[in-house]
Amino acid sequence: MSTDEVVTAASRFAVLDKKLKKSWEDLFARSRLVKTIQEGRIDKRLYAVYLMETYQYTLHNARNQALVGVRALDVGVSYLKFCFEHATEETGHEHMALHDMLSLGLPKEALEIPPPLPATEALIAYLYWVSATGNPLRRLGYSYWAESSYDYIMPLIDKVRETLELKPAQMTFFIAHSKIDEDHAEQVRRMIAQNCKTDQDWHDVERVLETSLRLMGNMMEEVFAEYELLRKEQSATHAFLGLLK
Amino acid sequence: MSTDEVVTAASRFAVLDKKLKKSWEDLFARSRLVKTIQEGRIDKRLYAVYLMETYQYTLHNARNQALVGVRALDVGVSYLKFCFEHATEETGHEHMALHDMLSLGLPKEALEIPPPLPATEALIAYLYWVSATGNPLRRLGYSYWAESSYDYIMPLIDKVRETLELKPAQMTFFIAHSKIDEDHAEQVRRMIAQNCKTDQDWHDVERVLETSLRLMGNMMEEVFAEYELLRKEQSATHAFLGLLK
Amino acid sequence: MSTDEVVTAASRFAVLDKKLKKSWEDLFARSRLVKTIQEGRIDKRLYAVYLMETYQYTLHNARNQALVGVRALDVGVSYLKFCFEHATEETGHEHMALHDMLSLGLPKEALEIPPPLPATEALIAYLYWVSATGNPLRRLGYSYWAESSYDYIMPLIDKVRETLELKPAQMTFFIAHSKIDEDHAEQVRRMIAQNCKTDQDWHDVERVLETSLRLMGNMMEEVFAEYELLRKEQSATHAFLGLLK
Amino acid sequence: MSTDEVVTAASRFAVLDKKLKKSWEDLFARSRLVKTIQEGRIDKRLYAVYLMETYQYTLHNARNQALVGVRALDVGVSYLKFCFEHATEETGHEHMALHDMLSLGLPKEALEIPPPLPATEALIAYLYWVSATGNPLRRLGYSYWAESSYDYIMPLIDKVRETLELKPAQMTFFIAHSKIDEDHAEQVRRMIAQNCKTDQDWHDVERVLETSLRLMGNMMEEVFAEYELLRKEQSATHAFLGLLK
Repeated sequence: MSTDEVVTAASRFAVLDKKLKKSWEDLFARSRLVKTIQEGRIDKRLYAVYLMETYQYTLHNARNQALVGVRALDVGVSYLKFCFEHATEETGHEHMALHDMLSLGLPKEALEIPPPLPATEALIAYLYWVSATGNPLRRLGYSYWAESSYDYIMPLIDKVRETLELKPAQMTFFIAHSKIDEDHAEQVRRMIAQNCKTDQDWHDVERVLETSLRLMGNMMEEVFAEYELLRKEQSATHAFLGLLK
Repeated sequence: MSTDEVVTAASRFAVLDKKLKKSWEDLFARSRLVKTIQEGRIDKRLYAVYLMETYQYTLHNARNQALVGVRALDVGVSYLKFCFEHATEETGHEHMALHDMLSLGLPKEALEIPPPLPATEALIAYLYWVSATGNPLRRLGYSYWAESSYDYIMPLIDKVRETLELKPAQMTFFIAHSKIDEDHAEQVRRMIAQNCKTDQDWHDVERVLETSLRLMGNMMEEVFAEYELLRKEQSATHAFLGLLK
Repeated sequence: MSTDEVVTAASRFAVLDKKLKKSWEDLFARSRLVKTIQEGRIDKRLYAVYLMETYQYTLHNARNQALVGVRALDVGVSYLKFCFEHATEETGHEHMALHDMLSLGLPKEALEIPPPLPATEALIAYLYWVSATGNPLRRLGYSYWAESSYDYIMPLIDKVRETLELKPAQMTFFIAHSKIDEDHAEQVRRMIAQNCKTDQDWHDVERVLETSLRLMGNMMEEVFAEYELLRKEQSATHAFLGLLK
Repeated sequence: MSTDEVVTAASRFAVLDKKLKKSWEDLFARSRLVKTIQEGRIDKRLYAVYLMETYQYTLHNARNQALVGVRALDVGVSYLKFCFEHATEETGHEHMALHDMLSLGLPKEALEIPPPLPATEALIAYLYWVSATGNPLRRLGYSYWAESSYDYIMPLIDKVRETLELKPAQMTFFIAHSKIDEDHAEQVRRMIAQNCKTDQDWHDVERVLETSLRLMGNMMEEVFAEYELLRKEQSATHAFLGLLK
């Protein structure tokens, strides 16, 4: 890259990071789940509902990531390789979420896999849509926040660990993930810098960043609502998590 | 159908209609767009933003409807025919929304087609997902409310017409649609009655009913938010509708 | 259409019809199935194998036809409507092939549905590929010969009927189809005339015409090869048709 | 694996290898391209047409390989990882075919990329179909011969090199590929051994092996036919390769 391009990329990333910050702030501001964690009031059932939904969308991450490469015909070899390589690395991560859920004390035979909550399904649907249509670069907007979310959520994870007195081995999804993802975050950044050439490219990435993070926020809200049903013994789908009380 | 089955279907529809009512009430309760209409404060720009987003998702309705038939391998001939026939009938309806928007006084050369708002894109994505995966019957849950929504929204349409002093020829999407859809609603009901055989079938239809209507509510909220940006001259995408003030 | 366009379309169709004739001649020249029919040596088992493979690819015709409309975004409303309408009409036609096969004297309980023969699967795969990718008009090249094939194959059908002493009610697929398809053929022709605007469009249609007819020829060859296995009692998949000897 | 399973796998592979041998023998027996190579009569234009079609289908190999992982929901993590990893490794290999073609003496500015020949497109279509539908293991049948084809084709490659007096650097596709593929072949074998559990699994793999190799044979025949057109200056699409005479 020439100096000009570096400057441009830097200012583009500054805009992106500003949006990222704003999106997280919006999510935090309205999230009852976040508030409950921050106030040290989370219980195992709430965390378990969250892990279950994390399992649900994570199950599709490698698949929709690979789908970008399957359908994108006019992109460079390095971006294609990234799509398939990244998919390889994401494969099977959903099992960490299940593992952590079981480690809370749920007997294996009590485990059920209910369908995803509606807001989780909307997130999953959106990620496939973004991967299957439009600018093939735009899914990078999801990876951009997903792989660098630890700055924002690490304090929450720490608080969950403290409140529920968990050991690191019970938080593999977040802890192992945070290490894997440092690398990914760097690759995602490089992919964006190398491939986004037009205003439209940067705009498409930004838009997916905002929309997917908002849909994640919706999922978190619905996790909380399901938890409230669970507490009132009215949950139709996640009742099996009541054992964790 | 035997008498038993008729009874069962009737009670199933009663449950579905209760959910439908509840979903509309939730949507109405939180919708700033609905409130603005009810209070006679809607202006052409707000209606135009709504029509634009209606154009956006309607553009995909025939396509995702047909997709059900493309991918469903274990369904009966009558349901397959319904999918393709219904797709035929829905084809091109998006142009009515554009027509109505232009009839508000927007010069044809001023018309732009910005990308759908994020919440509209989430709705579109969800409808493709529902059509492409899972129980092939479940998209009927979307049709169920979409084709019978006139009970709920007709008072709003009347109020919009009155407030904006529109002629029927300026509301082709809603008025023409409401006639077409009486027939569709009956067909959709018949398809559900004939094809939903298990608890899971009814449940899947119900779930898509609720989720898609909620996503429509999200779209309506975002239409309102975009309108507020438009009023403050901060809309990045729908600024061309400012001409309608 | 102006006079010029009519002239052009006429000369375009003349080229297409020449290719069509050539393709059928090539198919006839190499086809052992055709030769066997023409020489009055067809037996019920051979006809039944052919009907079974006809069932197999016909099962997908409505689906891949609708797929064109699902994925084509830049085509006119009339072509979209045609895709979905045509899909509606093709739905369920595969059952006529099964019906005719059973009417040869196969007991219903003896009926098996083996997987399609490899050449049949290659044809099915190609039709989905053509429908899912490339010029959305190109599938018309398949419809062009499929809907107007009766000139070429009617003498064969008559010969089959005569040799096997079949009644019209035992040949519903071909006889009913030939009536339905007169209309379709006219619509297909109109769609081609209205939508093919560039050399590339006409060329893409022509290419699919030739390729799909050649793949159909391959299927017919493999039907014959399977019949030979059946006669030698070596067919792994179609042995149940041995009952028809 | 227990001893029993090892025995079974060994006998299964023996069957597969017998089919493989038979399929290659059939291909060799009818191939005018193979005969021309064996008799030392290949010229650069024929080799170039072959490389062009190799480019065409190779362009899709990584994509359809990844597609298996995108759509397969009930397979183990190790098979999913294999799909995405293998896709990563296959990415960009088509450029080797182009490189080798240019190295024959074609000026870069003369290079055209015509659409694939019909038989090549049928092969591409089939590989997507196999990857998108049916038993998710079955694409391994294609990999099984594609990654281990060097025993069969190395004598041909040697003969081409000798006849056209090529250096290894002019045959990167085949030579580099043959090294990469030893590893792949081993992985493919392991994936088959680990994942094929039922008769149906083995049968599905075998069937794709035979069908895809036959479609490759069809492609080779059509390469030869196109070369004959080229020699008579009648090739509509590959005329630019006439420069290599």
